[in-house]
Amino acid sequence: MRKPAVVLLSGGLDSATVAAIADRDGFAVHALSFEYGQRHSPEVDAARRIAIALGVDQHKVVKIDLRAFGGSALTDDIDVPKDHTQSDTESDIPITYVPARNTIFLSYALAWSEVIGADDILLGVNAVDYSGYPDCRPEYIEAFQAMARLATKAGVEGNGATIHTPLIHATKAEIITLGVSLGVDYGLTISCYDPDQNGSACGRCDSCLLRSKGFRDAGLDDPTSYQPGVRG
Amino acid sequence: MRKPAVVLLSGGLDSATVAAIADRDGFAVHALSFEYGQRHSPEVDAARRIAIALGVDQHKVVKIDLRAFGGSALTDDIDVPKDHTQSDTESDIPITYVPARNTIFLSYALAWSEVIGADDILLGVNAVDYSGYPDCRPEYIEAFQAMARLATKAGVEGNGATIHTPLIHATKAEIITLGVSLGVDYGLTISCYDPDQNGSACGRCDSCLLRSKGFRDAGLDDPTSYQPGVRG
Repeated sequence: MRKPAVVLLSGGLDSATVAAIADRDGFAVHALSFEYGQRHSPEVDAARRIAIALGVDQHKVVKIDLRAFGGSALTDDIDVPKDHTQSDTESDIPITYVPARNTIFLSYALAWSEVIGADDILLGVNAVDYSGYPDCRPEYIEAFQAMARLATKAGVEGNGATIHTPLIHATKAEIITLGVSLGVDYGLTISCYDPDQNGSACGRCDSCLLRSKGFRDAGLDDPTSYQPGVRG
Repeated sequence: MRKPAVVLLSGGLDSATVAAIADRDGFAVHALSFEYGQRHSPEVDAARRIAIALGVDQHKVVKIDLRAFGGSALTDDIDVPKDHTQSDTESDIPITYVPARNTIFLSYALAWSEVIGADDILLGVNAVDYSGYPDCRPEYIEAFQAMARLATKAGVEGNGATIHTPLIHATKAEIITLGVSLGVDYGLTISCYDPDQNGSACGRCDSCLLRSKGFRDAGLDDPTSYQPGVRG
């Protein structure tokens, strides 16, 4: 029997790749997605399509209300910045940062992992071609794992959860190349922070620019569906 | 102006005392409660009454669905154990443990603290007269704080959140004595894991037994409303 693992699946490129890696590595994939009042809710539809395409064991979509707190362009009525990537500007944390988002997501993953008896949690954070979010850094992930092992029954009675971040040191081009070799259909994924109702990408936000550059660097065709008049 | 602090307010005895401590210590109290599909939802009503009685600056009740995962007598259709406290039996973690509950609650508190610019988060965990939950221990709280400081913009750009647990080494009797001196009306609070629809306590679950003993040890009258035929 395959060991269960919880995989955070956002509907984006990175997490789809991580789900494929978990499957390759012999895990029974328990995919976990969130509807958090985000602008880009077509992401959740994408997560559903990816979960089906991969044939995961289980896919849960949990509704949480991050809008209750506000404080981010991804959940508030603040414009998503366009036409520059984070690295073009400051090293500041961008307005698309959602306070404590990965901490909340990982906390739910931890809860579910304990209920299903999974020792492993995988997520697609990346500290190379990323948007400058503090909760994507290796030191954050290590601290979360240390906390998780003290938080849970599984940690007290055994080893507790291991948090895997197989993409943390990969470039976007490396991620795409790996995913394609594992059969990931990136046409199903959505990276855009501000997609339209059809899930078509704006081509101009930080996340679109990183994705587009990734495909170019990998020398692969970009299967992203862009909004009318936009070129990836 | 008073500094803002986020206080986790469950509607129980401990968190009501912590809210009063935060107020005494000059914080503008931003109380945070959760409806998480728990059996004892009268707790949330209690949290509302306590927040009003204390005159907090703000009180948010966030709906989260821990039932989605199951795995606890507090959220599933599993009987709550009666007539013994945890210390009477094994050192095992009891069935009323909710996987990763405090981690999820603290994650939301962390998100809100960052949005309102609060450096302080207070919660009423207790490692003395407690139910044996791993996420009530000092080492867990320290690990959460270390993680939190790496997780957030506030932690990257400044010190980040400090997690205060003023009751962690106090006995239930000490907590009650302190709370009474601060004017806490414990008649508003609910500790029971299995209250009836009126919020009256069963008098027999772990939490009721600890609370009742606390009032006896403090030499104070127990204002708890018990279900018909039950004596505290």
